[in-house]
Amino acid sequence: MYVKSLNLKSFRNYDNVSVSFEPGINFIVGNNGTGKTNLVEAIYFLSLSRSFKKCSDEDLIKRDKTSAELTIEYFSEKDKEEHLIGATITKKGKAFYFDREKVPQLSKVLGNLSSTSYDPSSVFMFKDDPQERRRFLDETLGVLSKDYLYTLSRYKKILKERNTALSQSEYDRDVLAVLTKELIKCDYIIAKQRFGLVERLNTLVDEIFREIEPNKKLVLKYVSTLPNITDSKTFMEQVEILFEKKKSEEAIKKCTLIGIHRDDLKAKIDNQDLDSYCSQGQNRLATFALKMAVAKLIEEIKGEKPIIILDDVLSDLDITRCKNILMYLEKGGQTFITVAEIGKVELTKNYKLYEIDNNEIVRRR
Amino acid sequence: MYVKSLNLKSFRNYDNVSVSFEPGINFIVGNNGTGKTNLVEAIYFLSLSRSFKKCSDEDLIKRDKTSAELTIEYFSEKDKEEHLIGATITKKGKAFYFDREKVPQLSKVLGNLSSTSYDPSSVFMFKDDPQERRRFLDETLGVLSKDYLYTLSRYKKILKERNTALSQSEYDRDVLAVLTKELIKCDYIIAKQRFGLVERLNTLVDEIFREIEPNKKLVLKYVSTLPNITDSKTFMEQVEILFEKKKSEEAIKKCTLIGIHRDDLKAKIDNQDLDSYCSQGQNRLATFALKMAVAKLIEEIKGEKPIIILDDVLSDLDITRCKNILMYLEKGGQTFITVAEIGKVELTKNYKLYEIDNNEIVRRR
Repeated sequence: MYVKSLNLKSFRNYDNVSVSFEPGINFIVGNNGTGKTNLVEAIYFLSLSRSFKKCSDEDLIKRDKTSAELTIEYFSEKDKEEHLIGATITKKGKAFYFDREKVPQLSKVLGNLSSTSYDPSSVFMFKDDPQERRRFLDETLGVLSKDYLYTLSRYKKILKERNTALSQSEYDRDVLAVLTKELIKCDYIIAKQRFGLVERLNTLVDEIFREIEPNKKLVLKYVSTLPNITDSKTFMEQVEILFEKKKSEEAIKKCTLIGIHRDDLKAKIDNQDLDSYCSQGQNRLATFALKMAVAKLIEEIKGEKPIIILDDVLSDLDITRCKNILMYLEKGGQTFITVAEIGKVELTKNYKLYEIDNNEIVRRR
Repeated sequence: MYVKSLNLKSFRNYDNVSVSFEPGINFIVGNNGTGKTNLVEAIYFLSLSRSFKKCSDEDLIKRDKTSAELTIEYFSEKDKEEHLIGATITKKGKAFYFDREKVPQLSKVLGNLSSTSYDPSSVFMFKDDPQERRRFLDETLGVLSKDYLYTLSRYKKILKERNTALSQSEYDRDVLAVLTKELIKCDYIIAKQRFGLVERLNTLVDEIFREIEPNKKLVLKYVSTLPNITDSKTFMEQVEILFEKKKSEEAIKKCTLIGIHRDDLKAKIDNQDLDSYCSQGQNRLATFALKMAVAKLIEEIKGEKPIIILDDVLSDLDITRCKNILMYLEKGGQTFITVAEIGKVELTKNYKLYEIDNNEIVRRR
């Protein structure tokens, strides 16, 4: 699929802009603070109904305005049709429109315009708290499987109850036993899918990373407090034994010590931990490969390439890595890349170039 | 002051390298993953006895080696002498040497080689948790005043006791009253210094920022749960009244709601919040200006310019901003800048250039 046009009214720094796009690689160039990120943030917002920045929806409305409007026209190769997604953001909330009809539930609009994105904070993905990486796994699996998010919310509810039970000085052992059993059932469903996802991503990541860093090997690993996935019955028995062993420690710490809420996703380049041994550039490349692996997964499931949004991905990379990334992207779906300086990019290629100046977007090639 | 030479043995990716430096701007260039950051990390380590990365000292030792050795020879314009700082890192700990003598206390070596640094995670300084910004204030004041850190550690101790008292279902009102009084005394000392620092930084930051962004205004603000600083007696009375008002809320939340542990440092460009409204590039420029303001403060106190370490500061900036930053730095002390690509840098200037390749450092100009 590809975005044909984007219209923004009172969104971030834009008063009222309209811009047409084409398939392939679209560069968004502009000086610092001109609104490059705001433009790709709008596409992300219409795809996932929220910003990739940590901000409230209200922050998206232009200063001194009361509401913002966003519209995207996109073409889907799968159903060979054009569609329209729109959103209105007011200080009270937001509403979405699909093909000009109001969408009653957010879930109905999510995933119509599918996308993968990379933003500057992703560089620290493997250095951040494990929570960030669990969120990545949960969001990815949330797109791929509807049951996943249901089981996850159930898990969180039971976990909370179990921790409350543990925090009471004299907790009811029967209640705790029931909660533990229920928790392990969810553990099985979630861990199985997470292990499976990481296994699948590993194959994809390896292929992608080899195109950017031909002589290096990137490996992902799901690091779990839980045993390996076998059949449901054996797994449950093994985890129950684990809980039995941790009983006294849990009583002291008053919280659940085993389960998918403690797990993590690790990555190594040539057997060196990404977080403590590898450079910022290497972290950027590894995260890029991971996001591109997700794009491949989405393509497999949805039957068409998602839109790729890359905010400031080329910073701090040398020319060879920049070239390799662009060569890789040329084979992919429609891509939006923001850059402050176009110097690194070979403009002999068939790239589209949009320049932002004075809150206006001008096509330069 | 300026670094004359650096020697690294089994440090990060380096086996054994020696390199000489000169005053002025020193560029460290190399492809991704060659060890640009590791080089400046070594200078930072000898200045502040720790890495700027979140890692253990053990991570600094080259893989398969048991210890790392770092030595810097630097010239101090103030005492017109050359000095030597060395460190040995083993898996059991680290030891420092000053002018070839072992330093018994870490505090004796800290601050000899004074430095200010910017690393890529600083971009998110104003987006991160307020805790990061309080740490910045505390670290800066820690360098400027010895009493500050003492009062801060006392504050933390009393705060912990007070929170423990609040968490007990029937806490002793007399004990709480004593702790509150002690806490407010520390509040006064710390808040006064923090307010003063931010005021001083504001003047400096304004000057620096105007050189990089001539038409924009950067303003810092210390946002406090405490009243304005007056005399000690009035301040104490006002805070006691505040605590009285918050009594029932504190009893419910079981923690201390007023005090320097809740305060924050905010920044605005042209009256727009840096965190929610400004771009990554603008955040980078503002943080750069803040770090350079700290360099000015150090210069005022120590009587000579500190060494400036800038890891990947030019990424995602446009040519105008890059030029402005370099023009500003030309007037400053010895500076180390890492870059993956030298394209943006005008090499007609008298910049020194070091290239890293195959774990070797070669001077190119």
